[in-house]
Amino acid sequence: MQLFASPSKYHGNEGRGVAVAPLNVAAILRRPMSLVVQKYGGTSVGSLDRIRIVAERVADTYREGHQVIVVVSAMAGETDRLLSMGWELSDGPAEREMDVLVSSGEQVSAALLAIQLNELGVPARSLLGHQARILTDNVHRKARIRTIDGTGLRSSLETGNVLVVAGFQGTDAYGNITTLGRGGSDTSAVAIAAAVKADVCEICTDVDGVYTTDPGVCPNARKIKCISYEEMLELSSLGAKVLQIRSVELAMKHRMPLHVRSSFSKAEGTIVTDEEHLLEKVIVAGVAADKKTVKLTVRALPDHPGVVASVFEPLAEANISVDMIIQNVSKEEHTDLTFTVSREDADRAERIVKDLVESVDAEGVVRDDAVAKVSIVGVGMRNHAGIAARMFRLLADNDINIEAISTSEIKTSCLIEAEHADRAVAVLHDGFALGKPAG
Amino acid sequence: MQLFASPSKYHGNEGRGVAVAPLNVAAILRRPMSLVVQKYGGTSVGSLDRIRIVAERVADTYREGHQVIVVVSAMAGETDRLLSMGWELSDGPAEREMDVLVSSGEQVSAALLAIQLNELGVPARSLLGHQARILTDNVHRKARIRTIDGTGLRSSLETGNVLVVAGFQGTDAYGNITTLGRGGSDTSAVAIAAAVKADVCEICTDVDGVYTTDPGVCPNARKIKCISYEEMLELSSLGAKVLQIRSVELAMKHRMPLHVRSSFSKAEGTIVTDEEHLLEKVIVAGVAADKKTVKLTVRALPDHPGVVASVFEPLAEANISVDMIIQNVSKEEHTDLTFTVSREDADRAERIVKDLVESVDAEGVVRDDAVAKVSIVGVGMRNHAGIAARMFRLLADNDINIEAISTSEIKTSCLIEAEHADRAVAVLHDGFALGKPAG
Repeated sequence: MQLFASPSKYHGNEGRGVAVAPLNVAAILRRPMSLVVQKYGGTSVGSLDRIRIVAERVADTYREGHQVIVVVSAMAGETDRLLSMGWELSDGPAEREMDVLVSSGEQVSAALLAIQLNELGVPARSLLGHQARILTDNVHRKARIRTIDGTGLRSSLETGNVLVVAGFQGTDAYGNITTLGRGGSDTSAVAIAAAVKADVCEICTDVDGVYTTDPGVCPNARKIKCISYEEMLELSSLGAKVLQIRSVELAMKHRMPLHVRSSFSKAEGTIVTDEEHLLEKVIVAGVAADKKTVKLTVRALPDHPGVVASVFEPLAEANISVDMIIQNVSKEEHTDLTFTVSREDADRAERIVKDLVESVDAEGVVRDDAVAKVSIVGVGMRNHAGIAARMFRLLADNDINIEAISTSEIKTSCLIEAEHADRAVAVLHDGFALGKPAG
Repeated sequence: MQLFASPSKYHGNEGRGVAVAPLNVAAILRRPMSLVVQKYGGTSVGSLDRIRIVAERVADTYREGHQVIVVVSAMAGETDRLLSMGWELSDGPAEREMDVLVSSGEQVSAALLAIQLNELGVPARSLLGHQARILTDNVHRKARIRTIDGTGLRSSLETGNVLVVAGFQGTDAYGNITTLGRGGSDTSAVAIAAAVKADVCEICTDVDGVYTTDPGVCPNARKIKCISYEEMLELSSLGAKVLQIRSVELAMKHRMPLHVRSSFSKAEGTIVTDEEHLLEKVIVAGVAADKKTVKLTVRALPDHPGVVASVFEPLAEANISVDMIIQNVSKEEHTDLTFTVSREDADRAERIVKDLVESVDAEGVVRDDAVAKVSIVGVGMRNHAGIAARMFRLLADNDINIEAISTSEIKTSCLIEAEHADRAVAVLHDGFALGKPAG
């Protein structure tokens, strides 16, 4: 599912929208002589030609007088190629060694970009995880960063070099190579930006910003100029692939402004920043549909204290996140308990709940894969009553039935039939006036 | 040129030769519970299937009770693939970055072999250059090893692990990745073996040992059971590709026995060891032909003191090794000065000498590429007079004209026309009775 991430062809007309805040973007972009961290993803360095383009871009930034740290992913396809070799040898390959294997991908792209920068006359040095002293815990394949030697990186910058850091990788206290999990290069970039106290962390990618909704569903979706960390977190957890949740959390923690922009154009993208920098709060920033959700219903569960806990405890133990929960009112001392889980957890969840049916004396378990969760997100909801009600009304007026509802401070989600998902997104996007103005 | 390195199909009948020493090979092979370093080259780890085969071999050695350190090259073709990307970006790619780029190749093969060993139930860990603390100087692309943390490696072995070390790479004092130059994995293996005081360093390769001559030229060439470091050095410098010169020098310095053997058979290969371990000295151990040599002649050089130095000094400054030198007797106060250089240095050497012609008042420079150097090598020559004379007689009896001669303590070389090179090898190989007995 690709959400909020539009190919460059969609951009244009941005900034003239209705609900978007006219905020002071320039103030949190690069100033003269600032320290910029730029992250380039796998497609941006996916070939030697693309590496040449990225190098030109980095060189331009350097020549404008900025200090630049570049964080790169592996060339597109390389990580999968390496992983597949490991999996071909073993059904459960040693995780320490998988990290050694797969981290070579970023090593190659970092070296190639440094070579090309030197070729352009820009002094540049690649740095691997252990060279940049990116210290992590020792959980291979999904390590978390503990510390980064920001002082060391800054003094390397002072010598006039562009630093090209291999993303996604670090080293544990014993010198073992660790990796941060899929999309970990975003996290590397934000953590490095925080460690060196960069002015901005630019996430350069194959889309040109964060959109009000999936432009594939709503062609008049608009690129968002500025969005708060909280909104971005909600959108990321709803499936917007443009930024990893952990990298947004980290940026929020360190108040590091992110600039999500295209690797292949110099157009301004989307700034992710503190809510207080948004001069005017947007009520609804974006609309999302999560089609990778599955509904499970335990039928005729005896309605006595503790029975609900006995369903959810084993799911929690299995590390399965339950999203929406609906408990119907009791009939004849029995109740139907419905909840949703992500598609990837659905089989395990179903098995666990089915195993419980007998012990809790329920009637059975019903699974429904044909559901979707549509959500509206916006910090303005905190102070504006009636936004949720307006959402329900828009759906009802378009004959879309709501099966369940969940809310947070800045988000309202409705579970609906999957077949109506795209239409629901369009209805809400138009209803909250998020689109580009006609004409 | 492939010399002394025979595909496995050639092996058989070895040890019944005439001139070979019946030495105590077993004494310097593995004993029970010994510490073995095994090096596998690029073709030996060139595919996942081959890595499976190598892992089985390592596992067998481990299960026999030995401690094992494996040193691996990059998968065949990978180093060239990586280098070509760097060269595609730049005509003079930054050498520091080329080392980062190319060292990823050994990282991948080390990780894959460790994964497969773990899959076989053998505890194994990969170690990169910096993890094994292989400290080198800072000459990128052709660094020399300064120290290796043998104590650290030994204590890692004590925990029961097989260590899989990425060959060819090290780290300088500042933590930059360095590489040891082509074939550097041999050097890595020998240096590691010396540092941990291994009992033997096994060079496992796609040939099954060192041969009396190129089996492609002499089908009855025989695998040598045991050869001295000095002989191996001479053979390596004559173009025998089976071992890097530097690795042999290093083995000699540390008196580390080498065992050159096939990666794909358990047959004994060739032991390279101290001369004193050779129970019976061979007079001639092997015959080689170097066809990559070029003859340059400076015509009618004025014959006065210092003129020869003025020719060779600029060559030395350009780091060009001059091999054979012949100065004819003077005629009318002029002389012809002839010398040979390797083919890869020939263009540069010719240019340098041509530039000199005017200043030294010579007549001109003549170049001849159609020459070859045939050599016989053997420690027994030290104590046996007449070996060189016998070589000249054998060539003369077969109408092969000798254009120049050079000798060392254990080697005699003759420059001849290239078209006779293979025949000269056969004549000498038979004449010194090096072949397998007929039968």
